[in-house]
Amino acid sequence: MNIAMLGSGFIARFYATTLHAQRRKDRIHSVYSRNLTHAKTFAADFGLERYSSTMDEIIQDPEVDAVIVALPNHLHEDAVLACAAAGKAVLCTKPLGRNAAEAKRMLEAVETAGVFAGYLEDLCYTSKFLKSLASVNAGSLGNILWTKSREAHPGPHSDWFWDKEQSGGGAIIDLGCHCVEIGRNFIGKAIRPVEVMCWADTQVHPIDAEDHAIGLVRYENGAIGQFEVSWTFRGGMDLRDEVMGTEGTIWLNSFLRTGFEMFTTGKGANYVAEKAESDAGWLFPVGDEAHELGYPQMFSDMFDAMEQGREPQETFYDGYVVNAILDAAFLSAKTKKWETVQLEDWRSAATVAVDKDWVSYNETYYLIKKEILPNGVEKVILKDKVTGEIRQETVGD
Amino acid sequence: MNIAMLGSGFIARFYATTLHAQRRKDRIHSVYSRNLTHAKTFAADFGLERYSSTMDEIIQDPEVDAVIVALPNHLHEDAVLACAAAGKAVLCTKPLGRNAAEAKRMLEAVETAGVFAGYLEDLCYTSKFLKSLASVNAGSLGNILWTKSREAHPGPHSDWFWDKEQSGGGAIIDLGCHCVEIGRNFIGKAIRPVEVMCWADTQVHPIDAEDHAIGLVRYENGAIGQFEVSWTFRGGMDLRDEVMGTEGTIWLNSFLRTGFEMFTTGKGANYVAEKAESDAGWLFPVGDEAHELGYPQMFSDMFDAMEQGREPQETFYDGYVVNAILDAAFLSAKTKKWETVQLEDWRSAATVAVDKDWVSYNETYYLIKKEILPNGVEKVILKDKVTGEIRQETVGD
Amino acid sequence: MNIAMLGSGFIARFYATTLHAQRRKDRIHSVYSRNLTHAKTFAADFGLERYSSTMDEIIQDPEVDAVIVALPNHLHEDAVLACAAAGKAVLCTKPLGRNAAEAKRMLEAVETAGVFAGYLEDLCYTSKFLKSLASVNAGSLGNILWTKSREAHPGPHSDWFWDKEQSGGGAIIDLGCHCVEIGRNFIGKAIRPVEVMCWADTQVHPIDAEDHAIGLVRYENGAIGQFEVSWTFRGGMDLRDEVMGTEGTIWLNSFLRTGFEMFTTGKGANYVAEKAESDAGWLFPVGDEAHELGYPQMFSDMFDAMEQGREPQETFYDGYVVNAILDAAFLSAKTKKWETVQLEDWRSAATVAVDKDWVSYNETYYLIKKEILPNGVEKVILKDKVTGEIRQETVGD
Amino acid sequence: MNIAMLGSGFIARFYATTLHAQRRKDRIHSVYSRNLTHAKTFAADFGLERYSSTMDEIIQDPEVDAVIVALPNHLHEDAVLACAAAGKAVLCTKPLGRNAAEAKRMLEAVETAGVFAGYLEDLCYTSKFLKSLASVNAGSLGNILWTKSREAHPGPHSDWFWDKEQSGGGAIIDLGCHCVEIGRNFIGKAIRPVEVMCWADTQVHPIDAEDHAIGLVRYENGAIGQFEVSWTFRGGMDLRDEVMGTEGTIWLNSFLRTGFEMFTTGKGANYVAEKAESDAGWLFPVGDEAHELGYPQMFSDMFDAMEQGREPQETFYDGYVVNAILDAAFLSAKTKKWETVQLEDWRSAATVAVDKDWVSYNETYYLIKKEILPNGVEKVILKDKVTGEIRQETVGD
Repeated sequence: MNIAMLGSGFIARFYATTLHAQRRKDRIHSVYSRNLTHAKTFAADFGLERYSSTMDEIIQDPEVDAVIVALPNHLHEDAVLACAAAGKAVLCTKPLGRNAAEAKRMLEAVETAGVFAGYLEDLCYTSKFLKSLASVNAGSLGNILWTKSREAHPGPHSDWFWDKEQSGGGAIIDLGCHCVEIGRNFIGKAIRPVEVMCWADTQVHPIDAEDHAIGLVRYENGAIGQFEVSWTFRGGMDLRDEVMGTEGTIWLNSFLRTGFEMFTTGKGANYVAEKAESDAGWLFPVGDEAHELGYPQMFSDMFDAMEQGREPQETFYDGYVVNAILDAAFLSAKTKKWETVQLEDWRSAATVAVDKDWVSYNETYYLIKKEILPNGVEKVILKDKVTGEIRQETVGD
Repeated sequence: MNIAMLGSGFIARFYATTLHAQRRKDRIHSVYSRNLTHAKTFAADFGLERYSSTMDEIIQDPEVDAVIVALPNHLHEDAVLACAAAGKAVLCTKPLGRNAAEAKRMLEAVETAGVFAGYLEDLCYTSKFLKSLASVNAGSLGNILWTKSREAHPGPHSDWFWDKEQSGGGAIIDLGCHCVEIGRNFIGKAIRPVEVMCWADTQVHPIDAEDHAIGLVRYENGAIGQFEVSWTFRGGMDLRDEVMGTEGTIWLNSFLRTGFEMFTTGKGANYVAEKAESDAGWLFPVGDEAHELGYPQMFSDMFDAMEQGREPQETFYDGYVVNAILDAAFLSAKTKKWETVQLEDWRSAATVAVDKDWVSYNETYYLIKKEILPNGVEKVILKDKVTGEIRQETVGD
Repeated sequence: MNIAMLGSGFIARFYATTLHAQRRKDRIHSVYSRNLTHAKTFAADFGLERYSSTMDEIIQDPEVDAVIVALPNHLHEDAVLACAAAGKAVLCTKPLGRNAAEAKRMLEAVETAGVFAGYLEDLCYTSKFLKSLASVNAGSLGNILWTKSREAHPGPHSDWFWDKEQSGGGAIIDLGCHCVEIGRNFIGKAIRPVEVMCWADTQVHPIDAEDHAIGLVRYENGAIGQFEVSWTFRGGMDLRDEVMGTEGTIWLNSFLRTGFEMFTTGKGANYVAEKAESDAGWLFPVGDEAHELGYPQMFSDMFDAMEQGREPQETFYDGYVVNAILDAAFLSAKTKKWETVQLEDWRSAATVAVDKDWVSYNETYYLIKKEILPNGVEKVILKDKVTGEIRQETVGD
Repeated sequence: MNIAMLGSGFIARFYATTLHAQRRKDRIHSVYSRNLTHAKTFAADFGLERYSSTMDEIIQDPEVDAVIVALPNHLHEDAVLACAAAGKAVLCTKPLGRNAAEAKRMLEAVETAGVFAGYLEDLCYTSKFLKSLASVNAGSLGNILWTKSREAHPGPHSDWFWDKEQSGGGAIIDLGCHCVEIGRNFIGKAIRPVEVMCWADTQVHPIDAEDHAIGLVRYENGAIGQFEVSWTFRGGMDLRDEVMGTEGTIWLNSFLRTGFEMFTTGKGANYVAEKAESDAGWLFPVGDEAHELGYPQMFSDMFDAMEQGREPQETFYDGYVVNAILDAAFLSAKTKKWETVQLEDWRSAATVAVDKDWVSYNETYYLIKKEILPNGVEKVILKDKVTGEIRQETVGD
């Protein structure tokens, strides 16, 4: 697969490094940057023959099979529209748009043009996430009640992230897009997200956008997808997910506590991990950051999907739904109440019966709880099916 | 110290076991229970001479120095009022009241009577909490921005907890009272809690009260105290706290991951820990549950305070503030918007200037962020103090 | 209980602080130190009326119920002999002697005098250890095959520890005494320790004693008690135990990973924990060090035992066995081969049949292993009872 | 790269799955198995055109670029010699031989034939290991004093492992080969391993080989490489490494505690991870087992090395040194004393000065230790350079 890279910054380099590692067969073919010097340097670093500061020249190159959009958020739409116009497969970094309107225009452009389109939501491709999702789908956790996805670190690498106009927001748009899609996967993509409640504030930095936010997304079946995002966290990159179901729990830690612990006095200090804040004392490095963040697995799915003529796991439609949820979050942070998720284009036909699964204890009672006390006695808490009275009994006492 | 125990259930036994362990000098003197048989059994188990099913008989016993109220929530008020009337020092289990009105009447009763009163909020006395609080007060974390306190397990032990009328609510009143007071301590008791946003639902059980809730308490200085409470958690007792400050982070785990890990095929199965759900596979027992939950430390503070003529760390006033916050949480769960915390009796004179601590980079710019990139280059993100423009520079590149 | 403290250094202060906390009823009554100024300061700090630089004056005080020996190792024997001569109950800090000969003389002295004697092996009293031991004794782990006890830190607090003559050795005598007794408890005190293999070296410090050692103690039933001790560890105090049995595993971490994690930039730095090496970055404080190290639980057992006329859990005989094992370890480190544990006084009558518990699969085969393969197939590895041939079968394939 | 696979069992399938994943460009071309049906099934499962039960037919195929030896241990030598004879590049699974004599003949065969040869020591290629090794080589840990590598699980998958004749031993040869090479990398491949002390026993299974062993490898510079191997562990696959240096510590956990925790009641049970023992309760799955075990990274290095005309990181010479160390371990387990590592072919010219790095405090004293006491006072322990006397001083007290 010959790939054109639009962008030459941090994320473009992370993508390119991933693709050119581990004897993978797909190669970066060319690079576009608004700044020709940056394009030239990038091309030299990755051994590319072609580079340009003219986007269309790169996109329309007939040797290019797919285009990766690795540009700041405010440039996604133009780039995607150019790819669609050129009939080129396009993979767009996250978030898809700065808002649902932008995302919807991108979605329509690629669908109208009939080109392959993939949404580069890497955190839905980490090995831990994929295996967790398989367990959830296999029923190991029963009905999913709540998910929490947390991404917090001391703030992003480039200036444009901090400028609300270019990025579309602060920590919500930068990090919340990951968290929302993680929760949506666990709860089920066919379940409609109904409304959002969100707190957001600019607690620390001299910026207009929020640097800290907490949100709750309520789905049609009553499940809650919680997100916690912050640019004010101290201690490195905090990437954690939790899932609660009626039959189990999953806890994932993708960065700070993954079985790699190092103490050093600081002698021979070197790079530890993305957004680590220290190079002495107890450190928690990550073995292979790209793999832990899901990059190689994501690109494998994308290119496999292209070759197999199927949709990738994360599509532009998913990106659009995420943007719609984030739009509601931004609105809720202002209005201070729950706001409806505006989804003009909702594609799932699933009708959700909210299923409470009450357990009958006998003809008279529902079982509320069964428990073994420290003294070994089993106790049940029961509710009368008719009167609603709650009482307890010890069993075999 | 001679202590009268009102109540003979799970928590009364936990208190008594704690007090009669480790060669402590204070002793349970007598016990009251509505059910005389229960009182008698309790007295026998703990070697007490006196027991009764008449509350006043126990309270008014002249040999009694202090009374512990370990009764269901709906019986707290009457018991506390009786103690106040009898001029007896009283220690009341959590929550203080079912709502702020009840709590306020209890507060006024003990203050009018001039008796010592302590609020038995054990989770604000765990050794981890006390040491964390000392670090926070010493400034190790800078300004506190956010706290999260989580208590989740498969549900309480006794029938009355599940009955909204007797308990005053579900997981919010049972567990949220801990979480709110933990957050309030870290953020600062002198900082006024302003408003609350709360989601609550009955996701699993056949009850009227909520079995799962998430709330955000916003304080006057912009700090957020988040609580997560659930009776639907699977996997044991999840007791975790987090604190984020401008200079640091604290993560506490008080039960499931405290350095005690056991795998067993189940041969020789026995009691593992409170609310553990399994006795085979990987288990996470707690060495000394009473100590991990703060009971001995709490009683030491209470009786030391009585002897020293000072207030204990956790007072009836604290219990009242917690109830007021929870009242706002219940209301918000219904109205689906932020609700003001109604505090008729607010005692702190602190005036909070919301302090943003922006860092000046030089005459022209504020510093948004400084970071070492993987290639060792230092990059700064800056904001023009006048124009607000955001730009980046690499330093010494 | 009125207690006389012999010694006024680090461990004496730790003991006294423990005893005077949490409303315990036993009190330090008086203190002896070779240095009168130290004795006076200690007395002032703990509110004691009496102090002296004459040991016998303190021991023979008729108001003293029990004497705690908290002196450097080379002074234990004289102090214990003086207590025995005075007919006083005596509690001696660890190790009991510098070698088995010293320990045996102390043991004989207290037994001849008929005084109560307790061995202050605190790490056999931590709540985690006690609960683990109960699980092991209840059979949750089946037959114990191997234990590992590890104590490693950057070195002790006082000069005499580093002087082989006064201490009796280096890390082996200082830390190995804990580790050996922990392993011995898990394997069973009635099982005879047979032989020891030990590596020891002075890897880092300008001293004669070893600053790092690894040893294996083989018990009569084939179980191995491994110890790992070091004064060269960087990163704090590493206190970990592991137990492997035929039915399960226990992992204990008593200091560095107990559910208390703090990141700080170093603003407001303060004391973190014993032997912590840093006050910035990721820190792992311990909530209540005395409790985590078993001190209060140990003293409760000691004084309860005195009052109840029973032996404490850790006796002078245990201290003697530990010294005998360490003697073999020191010898093995020199001879570079396994050395027999010389126990002139072995008191257990248990005859150990080494029990292999081979599982019969059917009339023809022993079962070596049963396993579920990733494809769900169950596979068994079998051994012919007669020919010894090993073969595999898949079941229900 | 066209690859021939010799063997069709568990490890052959793991290798093939790894190579055919993640859009890698190297492909399995053909397979040999002694059992033609197994070869045919393997070929069908991986989409191979060629399979055979004649080894030479597969090896000599001119379209084959490299041969992977994934056969039981007793068949390695013949296979490698056949590859060498055919002039084919050969990658051999671990251990290289059943003993150093076999390994040496294999080493000589490939060197004489001048073919590329790689030693498939996957655990020296995990991302955590590679990053740790880079930190160690950069000096972050100072001088390495001790390493511990532990591999323990409930026993291997196939019958031949359990048969000493075919495998060359038990847990030592199966697991110890990993552990020894991990320690050797951290301590430095140029440092000569001098002698070994090893305990081994057959504690549980009805077999002749050892199912549990602990060994210490002493290197010329005084560093110790400890290995702990067992087929008797309960609780899953315990893969942990530790490194202690004068300036720091590394702790790696490659399987059981890597940030992926799941509790399930067992509903919807499915495959968790290699050698997991349970599918209910708290489980610790591994996201991507092949990646966590180093397989993809290992093959990338191997094939990159072939193309670049350089040696891979792990060579047949490394495999030979490992076998020589294990030979000494087996001997020591019998003789019960340290045994010299017999290395007829030692290739490093490094002369090691054992460097103690004693720190001078001033003209008179060496510094033994500096410490901040809980009261904030700094204390130093000093040794007189001439008399050897040890004393302490408090600084600025």
